[in-house]
Formats: sequence, C-alpha cells, structure tokens
Amino acid sequence: MSAKFYSKENLQFLLHEVFHVEELCQLEHFKDHTIESFDMMLEAAASLGANHLRPILVEMDRTPPHIENARIKVHPKMRELMKKFGEDGWISMSAPHEFGGQQVPFTILQAVSFIFGAANYSPTAYAFLTTGAAHLIEAFGSKELQEAYIPKMFTGEWQGTMALSEPQAGSSLGDVVTTATLTDKGHYLLKGQKVFISCGDSDAVDNVVHLMLARIEGAPAGTKGISLFVVPRMRPDENGELVFNDVNTAGVFHKMGYHGAPIAHLMMGEKDDCRGFLLGEPHKGLSYMFQMMNEARIGVGTNATSIASAAYYNALEYTKVRAQGRKLTEKDASKPQTLIINHADVKRMLLFQKSVVEGSLSLCLQACKYYDLSKTAPEAEREDNFLKLELLTPMAKSYPAEMSIQTTSAALQCFGGYGFTKEFLAELFFRETRIHTLHEGTTAIHGMDLLGRKVMMQNGKATMLLMQEVMQDIEEAKKYNLLKSYAAVTSNKLVQLQEVSMHLMTVAQTIGPEAYLSDATLYLELFGIITVAWQWLKQGIAVEKLKAANTKDYSAEFLQSKIYALQYFFEYEVPKTEGLITRLKSSNHVTIEAKPEEIL
Amino acid sequence: MSAKFYSKENLQFLLHEVFHVEELCQLEHFKDHTIESFDMMLEAAASLGANHLRPILVEMDRTPPHIENARIKVHPKMRELMKKFGEDGWISMSAPHEFGGQQVPFTILQAVSFIFGAANYSPTAYAFLTTGAAHLIEAFGSKELQEAYIPKMFTGEWQGTMALSEPQAGSSLGDVVTTATLTDKGHYLLKGQKVFISCGDSDAVDNVVHLMLARIEGAPAGTKGISLFVVPRMRPDENGELVFNDVNTAGVFHKMGYHGAPIAHLMMGEKDDCRGFLLGEPHKGLSYMFQMMNEARIGVGTNATSIASAAYYNALEYTKVRAQGRKLTEKDASKPQTLIINHADVKRMLLFQKSVVEGSLSLCLQACKYYDLSKTAPEAEREDNFLKLELLTPMAKSYPAEMSIQTTSAALQCFGGYGFTKEFLAELFFRETRIHTLHEGTTAIHGMDLLGRKVMMQNGKATMLLMQEVMQDIEEAKKYNLLKSYAAVTSNKLVQLQEVSMHLMTVAQTIGPEAYLSDATLYLELFGIITVAWQWLKQGIAVEKLKAANTKDYSAEFLQSKIYALQYFFEYEVPKTEGLITRLKSSNHVTIEAKPEEIL
Repeated sequence: MSAKFYSKENLQFLLHEVFHVEELCQLEHFKDHTIESFDMMLEAAASLGANHLRPILVEMDRTPPHIENARIKVHPKMRELMKKFGEDGWISMSAPHEFGGQQVPFTILQAVSFIFGAANYSPTAYAFLTTGAAHLIEAFGSKELQEAYIPKMFTGEWQGTMALSEPQAGSSLGDVVTTATLTDKGHYLLKGQKVFISCGDSDAVDNVVHLMLARIEGAPAGTKGISLFVVPRMRPDENGELVFNDVNTAGVFHKMGYHGAPIAHLMMGEKDDCRGFLLGEPHKGLSYMFQMMNEARIGVGTNATSIASAAYYNALEYTKVRAQGRKLTEKDASKPQTLIINHADVKRMLLFQKSVVEGSLSLCLQACKYYDLSKTAPEAEREDNFLKLELLTPMAKSYPAEMSIQTTSAALQCFGGYGFTKEFLAELFFRETRIHTLHEGTTAIHGMDLLGRKVMMQNGKATMLLMQEVMQDIEEAKKYNLLKSYAAVTSNKLVQLQEVSMHLMTVAQTIGPEAYLSDATLYLELFGIITVAWQWLKQGIAVEKLKAANTKDYSAEFLQSKIYALQYFFEYEVPKTEGLITRLKSSNHVTIEAKPEEIL
Repeated sequence: MSAKFYSKENLQFLLHEVFHVEELCQLEHFKDHTIESFDMMLEAAASLGANHLRPILVEMDRTPPHIENARIKVHPKMRELMKKFGEDGWISMSAPHEFGGQQVPFTILQAVSFIFGAANYSPTAYAFLTTGAAHLIEAFGSKELQEAYIPKMFTGEWQGTMALSEPQAGSSLGDVVTTATLTDKGHYLLKGQKVFISCGDSDAVDNVVHLMLARIEGAPAGTKGISLFVVPRMRPDENGELVFNDVNTAGVFHKMGYHGAPIAHLMMGEKDDCRGFLLGEPHKGLSYMFQMMNEARIGVGTNATSIASAAYYNALEYTKVRAQGRKLTEKDASKPQTLIINHADVKRMLLFQKSVVEGSLSLCLQACKYYDLSKTAPEAEREDNFLKLELLTPMAKSYPAEMSIQTTSAALQCFGGYGFTKEFLAELFFRETRIHTLHEGTTAIHGMDLLGRKVMMQNGKATMLLMQEVMQDIEEAKKYNLLKSYAAVTSNKLVQLQEVSMHLMTVAQTIGPEAYLSDATLYLELFGIITVAWQWLKQGIAVEKLKAANTKDYSAEFLQSKIYALQYFFEYEVPKTEGLITRLKSSNHVTIEAKPEEIL
C-alpha cells in the first residue's frame, strides 16, 4: 500500500528555510529546544504515523463508532494509541513545563499534527482535542482543577473535549441554552444537551473531560451570558474515586467519513447530578474559548492539508505505475501504453494538488509562527504578531479546508474509475476532508469574521501590518529572475484587493451591512489565494537562495519540483482571482434582493 | 423526509417554453405523440419516482451489492422495480414501434431519466443501460439476434450492459485484449475479462446481455481492430432453454456511492464455452459503440443534474425550516433566531445550485433536441443538427458532471455540521454524483475530444453552426431590458472564446499538439460556462415572453425565481471565465515541461 503520506523534505524546507524555526529557540520560552530536537520529534512522529496510524486507517473507516449499552465503542486499537499519545508526550508537548509539558512551539505541534493527520486523521482528534481542552484548564482553571484533571489528560487516560454546539446553537453560539445553577458547595449543576462533541464519549479512555459552554441562571442573553465549565463524565470524589457525573451519551452521529473519531450527542443532568466547575469568571466563557480559537482553527487548516497531502502522494504514486493510453505524438497502437503521469492533464492535476498542499501548509505554518511569536516574543513584538495572526487565521482555516475538497477530488480523478472504488484510498480522503469547511466555524463564518471584523479592526492595523510584510517579501522576490514577474503579479493583486475592500466600504455606507458582507465568502477566497501566492513567493525566495548556495541539503529534483509548483500556482490558481474581483466589485446584489419565497 | 426532488414547473418550462417539444410531434417519426401524452408520461414518471424509487434510496445506499456464491446480490426491491420498468414501458419508450417500443423522443426519455435519477439514481442504470444495449442490437443485430434478445430486455426480465473496460483498457479502449475466435458454427468464442461493468450481474434479472467489445484473432492493433458482440450470461439453446454461457462474476466493486447498482468484474471463457454473436461487421465495434456514445454521454449529464437537483431541493427545504443566528441588522440576542435562508451566504449557495442545476438541465435538453432532430428531422436538416450535437456533447456530459460535485457540496454546506452526517441525505448525494466525471469518458477525455477533434472538424463547421445559433439567441435577448447587458456579455465571451481558440491553434503550430491540448480540460470548462450562459439567455427570453403574455401557466414566484438564477449565473459564474481565459492564453507550459521525476 501507499507508503508516502507527506514529504519530509518539504516539511524540513518550510520549517528550516522558509520559517527559520531555529529563531524560536532563541526565545526564553523555547530555550531548551534546538533545531535538532525538533527534527527528532518530527522523525518520531513520522515513525508513529507510519507504524501505528496508517496501518489502521482503512480498518477505522470500515468500523465506525457505534453505541453499545448507551456508550460509544470505537476502534479497539484506539485505547492503545491514546496511551501512546500520552506516554510519548504528544498530548502535552506544547504545554508549559509547570504542567509537565515539553514547552514545544505551536509550530512544531502543528507540524506533528500534520504528519499524524496525513497518516490517519481521526486518531489525532483524540490527542489534540485533549491538548486544547487541557490548555483551557491551564489558562483559566484553579490550581485544584489543574491538579485534578491535567495529569490524567496528559497521560492519555482521560479525553478532553470542547463542548460548544447544541441542537439550536451551532454557528450561533450565543444561543446556547444549557443551564448552570450554582450550588452552595461551590460547583454548578448543569442541565441541557450538546451535539457534535468530537470524542465526546469512547471506550478508548477511562474518563472524558468536557470544556463546556453553559449559561448561568440569570445571565444576559446572547454571547455575553455564556460561561465555561469543566464537566467531567466521571468526577473524582473526595477519595479520588471516580463517580458518574450524570453526563449521558444520547447517541453517536453517523458520518460520511472521519470514522475513527466518535461525534457524540450528550445529555447533562437528567438526574440533576451533573456537576460543572467554573473556569475563570462568569459570562466570559466565549471570550476564553475564543482565546483558544486561533489554535483550533489553524489546526483545522493543518488537518485539511494533511488529508490533501495523503491524497496527493497516494495519487502521485499511482500515476507513476499505472499505464494507460499513449503520448499524443505516438501513433503506433502496438507500442506499450505510457504511464499516466506522462499525460499533460494528469500532470496538471498533480501540480494542482502539490501547489495547493504545499501552499496551504506554508500558510498554516505562517499562522503558527505568528502564534508562537504572539505568545513568546519579547513583549513589544507580541501585539503585532497577534494582530497578524488574527487576520490570517480565517485564511489559514478556510483556504486549506475549501481547497482540500477540490484537491482530494483531483486525486480521486487521477485514478479514473478506480478512484470511485474502495480498492484505493482516494475515495476515503475525499470523504474524510469534507468535514473541514464545517467544524470550527463554517467557511461563511470565517468570511464574516474576516470582512466584518478583522480587516478593519484597530482601524485596519492588522491589514496594514500584514501587507507591509507581504510587500517586503515581494521586494525581495523581485531580485530573482524566476520570481520577478510573479512578484509583480502579487503586488498587483494586493492593489486589487485593496480596491475591492474600498469598493465594499462604499457598499457598506450606501447600501448597508448586509450587502457589504453578502459576498464575504468570496472575499475570503480572494484573500486566501493572495496569501498563498505570497507563501509561494517566500518559498521561491528560499529555493533561489538554496540554489545560489549550491545546497546539498535538498535534491535538485526537490528544488525543481518546487519551481514547477510555484509556476503552477501563479499560472493556474492566481488567475482565479480575476473572476472573484469582478464579482466583488459588481453592483448587483441578487443574494440580498432575492426573497426566500422567490427561491424555488 | 424530503418530498421534492425536482421542479415539475421548471421541467415543463424547459420542455414547453424553451425547447418547444411540441414541434417534435410534427415530425413523421413522433407523429403518434402530443404534448399532452408527453406530460402524462412525465407525470407517471414523477409518481413512480416518488412512490417506488425515493422510498428505497437510503436503504439501497446502506445495503450495497455483495457477492454470494459467485453471484451479485442487490437490493431485493430491484427485481420488482426492473419488472415495473419493463411492464410500464420505460425501458422501451424510445425504441421504434417495430421492436415494440413507443417511439418517444430522446428528449422525453432524458426528461424521464432526470426525474427517476433525482428520485434515486441507481435503479435508473438498470433500466436505461438495457435501453442502450437493446438499441445497439436494434441498429446492428441480425433479425435472429433481435428476436432472441430484445423482447426479454424490454420486459425487464433481462438486463443489458455495455461491456467495454478491461483492467488495462479503461480510457484507452484501443487496448482491449479480450479475444473472439470464430467457430465453424458461426458464433465466436470469447476469452478475457471486463471490469467496471454496470449491472454486469445481479439477482434482479434472469439474464444479462452484454454488448461487449473484443478483438477477433488477427485483428489490427488499436481501435481499428475491435468488434462488437452480444455476449449473454445465459444463452438460449435450440429449444429456447437458457444454458450457462461461461460468463463468470469475478467480483463486485465496492464504491463510494451509487450503491444501488452493482459494478461487476467479469471473466469470459474460463471453460472455453463463452459464445459471442457478432454485431455488424468485424473491426467496426468501436465505431458502432460511438454511434451510441452521444446518448450515453448526455445521459451522464442528465444523471449528474438529477442528483444535483435532488441535493438542491433537499437543501432548499432545510434552509426554510432551520433557524440559526440572526439577521445582521438584528442586534437583540433575545429575539428568536432567523431561518437560515435569510442569510445572504445561504441564498448565495442556493442560487449557485439553482443556476447550475437549471442551466445544466437546459444544456442537456438542448443536446437532446439536436439528437432527436439529427435522427428524425427532414433529411436536409439532419447533418447540421448532428454536427451541433457532436460539438455540444462534451459540455453536456462534463459541465453537469463537474459542477454537480460543487453543487452537491454547496448543498451539504447548507446543513452545517449536520450535512456531514447520515441523518440527512446531503452526504449521500455528494458521494453519489462523484462517479459522473469518471464514467463514459473522464473529463480530460472530453476536453481532448472537444479541442482535439470537434472544434475543428469539417473545418470548424460544427463550431460555426453552433455559434450562429447562439448569436441569434443573443440578438433576440438584446430586445429585452433585463437581458440586454447579459446578452452583450455572452457575445463578448464568444469573441474571447474564439481568441482563445486562435491562440491555441498558434500553440499547436509553433509548439506542438501536446501543448495545444495540455489545458483542454480548462478549455472545456470555459466552453461549458459559455454554453450554459447561452442556455440562461434562452430561458430569460422565455420568461420575458411569458411575462409579456401575462401567463397564468407559471406562478409569478417561479418567473421571478428564474430571473434571480439567471442573474446569479451571469454575476457569479460567468466571471469565472476570466481566469480561465488568462490561463488558456498564457505562454507558460509548466505541465508539459515538468518531467515526471521532477514532480515530487
């Protein structure tokens, strides 16, 4: 079966040559690490991926989670894996030393997540949801809560979750109605239901710790009345014994893919004995959650990219062994057939995937670097990095998520009719990645977040900061013959993006906010393509530097391959901005004007 | 569950107001029919779809075909259905009276197939593959063969198939190696294997009749040495008893969707007793097959559209009952949530689907009308219609096939996280339609067919004829205020298309055929969008005429809904041509230059 699911050489290239992660090791927070220790971690991640995750990918797909005696049963190997994720330190790798973590940059955590996800996406959810949940307790929990929950989460014995959605409150979290009633013992009693809780219940762990949004009785309506609680499935009693905390599993969602991870429907407080422990202050739950949101959203971008990577290498391998048809210049039908990678359209589909996968990964790592710097750089630099992170996050989440639908589809297409069958993995990746435009905010939500909030926040400061950085890279790219014209194109696209933004401001003023935001999804798409073009310029600069330095660290084929992918992106992907710009500047507002009863 | 899977009003509108099917009834071949009899047929089809096909859609998906004792078992209802397809005359509806058919236009057959497919795609494969296979025997079979096979096929007791692909010969049919050896009894003995044979074996029928490509011993290599045979699974002996014809079922393909229909792997002649009966002359098999190809390819376009239609109405219904979030102008979080159809981005996703679904259906029916006229119009008109059919077929097949992947994805997106679950049908349609860019020629094959063969055939006569017709419609559209600007856009796009074609001719001459055809898939996409823009102009003209005539036949909402979809298409879809044109005119040929070993 397909051995390669990601390119080690490319990941090295991005981390070392484009993002210079060694710079992070000079920061106080990461001073115990070196570039070598990062490389060893990534090596270990690759080995775990190849030896433990990939071998059960198909099995997991064929045996989705199911309910047995009101509990969710998952793939039997998952308990072993979760233990391994814990014992080998993957769950706690980014946590501070004080909580027993290894204090590794978020950038490296995401690189690991990328490798794992490319091997087999579902198991990563168990591990990194636990990391994220623990992170909330680290940030906002009392010492008591931290001691009671974090250690068992980091060993992989207990699962962590983010419990936000309810049947009536998915995209609209302000409508959460799960209630929390304060008792005289200091804890709250929770009552309500939650849906779409990833890893919300499973027999892979001994306990599940939900980081749950709920509304304290009497709280204001909307997002300003939501609090964050630790709500375990089993709570430790005074003696440390686990007793059932009245969190019942009402069901498991049957899904199109991503079968290795269970998505639960939970009922809290059916017997009025579901205890929750407040994190931080009342009514600030959503803002706490949002402090973790950039992580989770970049995580989705990385995961989408990882599946797209797996699909790409799977297809690439096939096109190099499958013979079909002949070159157009070969008229002799008695000659043997040619490998399909020799057909221009197959190369087109491969370069499409490669340019999007490697562009997406670069984009996600860019966001990661901002994240790390926003947390650990010298104080004076943090705010700027945070602003750039905030602005870039909608693209880092949605560009990979949306494009992975298309690239996994192209990968499937490379297999011809076989791509539709379960004899190959292509269809699995196509099903699997479809979740990513939906969870952690749908694409529309991110479009609104970008255009409605982030582009203009602090009088456009984030936009200005990011554009300055892009312009610097454009200037550098102009020094290289190979990149000159593409640098000019990118520069031109920045101008056009600004024109679009200005046009939309006028729409906001003359027509109103609805019309302003009506094509926010397309604006996000446009912004996404431009940011990935920027990432390709950065990669191009790194390639040119390596070539000038006569590098032995990367093969000539690798560097040439990068140039092809870069060319492909500018020749085939960047032109897609033209139609988007035309649309975004149009004065027609059919999606506003059309009345629901007139859409038949 | 979702009741509506297609719009009866829209189908009527297209057949009556845009394509004037009543004109067909004036032709000798269709003189027994009236517009009323067509409407009755469509009514009956809708009833069969709603009462017999849709109710088992989910069941069929959950119980895919499987092998039992070296035979394929399918959904138990399928036998009953196949009988119904036969007894009610659906299989034979388009066949000539002399074979017991009803001699219905192909346009109506496709309208019926659209309705059935929107209800439940898989069962239609059994019925209409049988129609297509019988059609080959009608056209090229001896009287003896016709009498032996066609009647049982038309009753639905026997299944018909098209048996083309082999493991080494999918897209490249010239590489078929199944052999046929003439015996002194007049029949041939076949030996070889076939893959991807839709309905190639099932317990829904008593027998399967394969229309099979094979190579007579000593035949020339390539496509010029392929012959067409009738190869039944069971052959009638001298007494009319069925005896096993040595066609073994080697396996069934497990697929991502389209589970109701089995796709078989067949082995012929393992005991050297597989008899085949030659159709027509030796070595002309592929050309016979190709005479049926336009039908099959339009059929794929229609089927893709039907699934997209089902997904659209399913999503539309949901957006009108699901409340989530509030209008941007509503700041009071205590107010009830709004229906999601009130969000501009949801309307955008709906209008995207509607404009593509109704544009695709119109495109398919346009091809159908050319088909009917090419066969049954007064002799002098046939050739021109045939040429236009030939040219339009790649778009009629591939535009709906490619776009249905995107529209079913948009439908799924309308459901938010629920779209990824099996509680709703959205994910099923998304899986189901993915077959259509693969079978009956991949999209790349159609791109090459269009650019490499059809655009220039007979010195571009087909192109000229089609463009003339489009120009006439543009001129008419210019008379209406609503359409004026869109008519001008379409006219402009025709000019740009021509410029692209001219540019590519230069590439062909200066660089060579590979570079000429390297972006044929994108050329097909461009041509597709332009032909659908034309179809929207035609629909716009019909709407304006109905409005001017103060029609009572169509509701005001329906006509307004058409105008919104038309606007959407021109505002959001047509601009996509800009990027395609830029790319197609570029002088960069990275997909030709990139060497396989440099794609990593």
